[in-house]
Amino acid sequence: MSYEVNASIITIGDELLIGQTIDTNSAFIATALNTIGVWIKRRVAIGDVRSEILEALAAESKQSKITIITGGLGPTADDITKPALCDYFGATLKVNNDVLENVKAIFARINRPLLPVNEKQAEVPNNCTALQNKRGTAPGMWFEKDGVVYVSLPGVPHEMEGLIESEVVPRLKQRFSLPHIIHKTILTAGRGESEIAAIIADFETALPAHIKLAYLPAYGMVKLRLTGRGSDREALEHDMQRRVALLKELVKDFLASDSDQTLPEVVNGLLKEQKKFVATAESCTGGYIAHLLTARPGSSATFKGGVVSYANDAKELALGVQHSTLEMHGAVSEQTVTEMATGVLEKLNADYAIATSGIMGPDGGTAEKPVGTVWIAVANKNGVKATKHFVRFNRKKNIEVTAQFALNVLRLFLKEQQA
Amino acid sequence: MSYEVNASIITIGDELLIGQTIDTNSAFIATALNTIGVWIKRRVAIGDVRSEILEALAAESKQSKITIITGGLGPTADDITKPALCDYFGATLKVNNDVLENVKAIFARINRPLLPVNEKQAEVPNNCTALQNKRGTAPGMWFEKDGVVYVSLPGVPHEMEGLIESEVVPRLKQRFSLPHIIHKTILTAGRGESEIAAIIADFETALPAHIKLAYLPAYGMVKLRLTGRGSDREALEHDMQRRVALLKELVKDFLASDSDQTLPEVVNGLLKEQKKFVATAESCTGGYIAHLLTARPGSSATFKGGVVSYANDAKELALGVQHSTLEMHGAVSEQTVTEMATGVLEKLNADYAIATSGIMGPDGGTAEKPVGTVWIAVANKNGVKATKHFVRFNRKKNIEVTAQFALNVLRLFLKEQQA
Repeated sequence: MSYEVNASIITIGDELLIGQTIDTNSAFIATALNTIGVWIKRRVAIGDVRSEILEALAAESKQSKITIITGGLGPTADDITKPALCDYFGATLKVNNDVLENVKAIFARINRPLLPVNEKQAEVPNNCTALQNKRGTAPGMWFEKDGVVYVSLPGVPHEMEGLIESEVVPRLKQRFSLPHIIHKTILTAGRGESEIAAIIADFETALPAHIKLAYLPAYGMVKLRLTGRGSDREALEHDMQRRVALLKELVKDFLASDSDQTLPEVVNGLLKEQKKFVATAESCTGGYIAHLLTARPGSSATFKGGVVSYANDAKELALGVQHSTLEMHGAVSEQTVTEMATGVLEKLNADYAIATSGIMGPDGGTAEKPVGTVWIAVANKNGVKATKHFVRFNRKKNIEVTAQFALNVLRLFLKEQQA
Repeated sequence: MSYEVNASIITIGDELLIGQTIDTNSAFIATALNTIGVWIKRRVAIGDVRSEILEALAAESKQSKITIITGGLGPTADDITKPALCDYFGATLKVNNDVLENVKAIFARINRPLLPVNEKQAEVPNNCTALQNKRGTAPGMWFEKDGVVYVSLPGVPHEMEGLIESEVVPRLKQRFSLPHIIHKTILTAGRGESEIAAIIADFETALPAHIKLAYLPAYGMVKLRLTGRGSDREALEHDMQRRVALLKELVKDFLASDSDQTLPEVVNGLLKEQKKFVATAESCTGGYIAHLLTARPGSSATFKGGVVSYANDAKELALGVQHSTLEMHGAVSEQTVTEMATGVLEKLNADYAIATSGIMGPDGGTAEKPVGTVWIAVANKNGVKATKHFVRFNRKKNIEVTAQFALNVLRLFLKEQQA
């Protein structure tokens, strides 16, 4: 749309090009800018090569009013980014005293010797505005040239994030007249992307140009996100609310959350409502469910604890699973997972329990129980229920998918108990 | 270097531009191509816009001999990528029967109705080579134009990865004469990037142009990676071995691994050597250490299990921590973490135990024990040792860093016991 302010993100660093580092910075920057109404038009990753940096700066300035550059500023960077910026903006490097003070303070605080390479980090091009980095030694730099804003930031995520929040976002809001962007997201579980698309086809066709629908599938769940842009915030909010209500009605049979929540958040929310505690007994998921339940603040109000009963004797010792059960039915069985769930419920004095036992691969499968076989049990004082599932990815994904399956089983059980 | 074959990666999809999805595909593709001697020159992410796809294809063909395109092929994609490819390559869409059979087989297997949108996935531009996707319904597509190879792949990671491994890599090796690339990586723990840089400055300066050194810092650890390129594999391997031996000698006091291993891999390796089992007792890390130890295959030979004793009563019930200890010293204390470690060692009949208790934030800190305070204990039958640490990130990173700290504490303890 014509009122949009576009941005490009340029990430600099060989580590992004050889696959050693996954680029999480771009997603963070995109989210932050998107929230204030800046549309990311392009993201470009290039190596530590001066000519390519110059070429990318020139190319992106033709596409976007804002260019955010990250990386290439660390103490061991090959002194390529800053000289390239000097070239591009016709500047020379000069020590910035505020930045130097910050560098000295940080080294004093962490009690490490200040080396000449660290002092050099206080040098910035003389025509930029230095943005103070409270979390590290490399400052951010703000340039303007021919009506385009360029911001250079360090590549360390924690430092970049601090600078985006405290410096870049407030300055961009001041510098540009930005449209309103509203996102509304709901979470569905148990239906595929194309099935949902068929169900909501008419709804989708009826969307106006300024509202977009996105399908975000992940592991048996699909998030549906409506994004609207407009200059009248109130009218847009009203219209979006009406549409998201329509959408919820269409998918109500498999709606897991009516806001932008993850499954752990939905589960924690239900537990909090009921003022109940859950405990986990994990074999194949190896602690991943407990990790998901404790990753967000506030989990101590709903999560009692868990047992990772990886070895067979750990299932006996920590959960009281009968030796004979393991002998007769094996670790991956309805009987074992049932005893795991009831065992942890009792041992940890919890209100609900969720248990997993399965074969995540690549080894360990048999003809009868192939890799991917998973038993999940959920229990409370009224009873226990075990279900068999199947996952078909590599080990890492199988663990993640099984954890999400288990959380969905727990979610449905919690809803049932509530009803 | 002149003998290099460059590649560009183009990822298509609005979800990458609004920050909803983190681009893990590019890192996977980069690693796979790098291994066979293809250098990734640029990565570009653009939205689902026909004109931008065409513009990016034209621009990248001037930079690289190979362009890999991912995304924009799902059943609910807005029919933009394939028509854009038809435009660019002067083709028309035509049903490919092999692909149609694959789509039908997949829907039969998962027992879901085949919808018209799914059948449409079997349509491909008539001048491409369709690459069969065994993991999903969207095929890969291989094009050649003016000496440049273009490969279009679905954006679902699991499907893209299968196609890269089974189709793209073998075909690229056949199509291009590629140089040898050798990576050698070592892991250090306990020193900062700039300190290491000062220690190995002479070594780094002496590196020839065809060997590059990269610093890959992560959470108190720094990976050092040497990358060499050459046409004579044997000579290159010999030279690289010599240099990595020199490097190891320089950093020997803080060397954690002499190969490209993660800390969990190093720990599992030490345990396997000693034929010993470890157990975990986690409070603040919430199961994340157990997850790290079980994420890779083979962990059942070294990991007994663990307890996530999140609530105070879970520490008492599952680990036998004394009520009076918790009353007197609190959960985050030397005394509690010590009892957690000895408790799990005994309960799970393990050879080693590692325990964590801390305040990950954002809430829960006090003047005496601020957010970031962490106690870590390690134990075996000979004794127990607790140390205090401090982390200073957000909750998510604090959990990750604490887990890595704990694994490093365990690693040093394992080395000590070995010596």
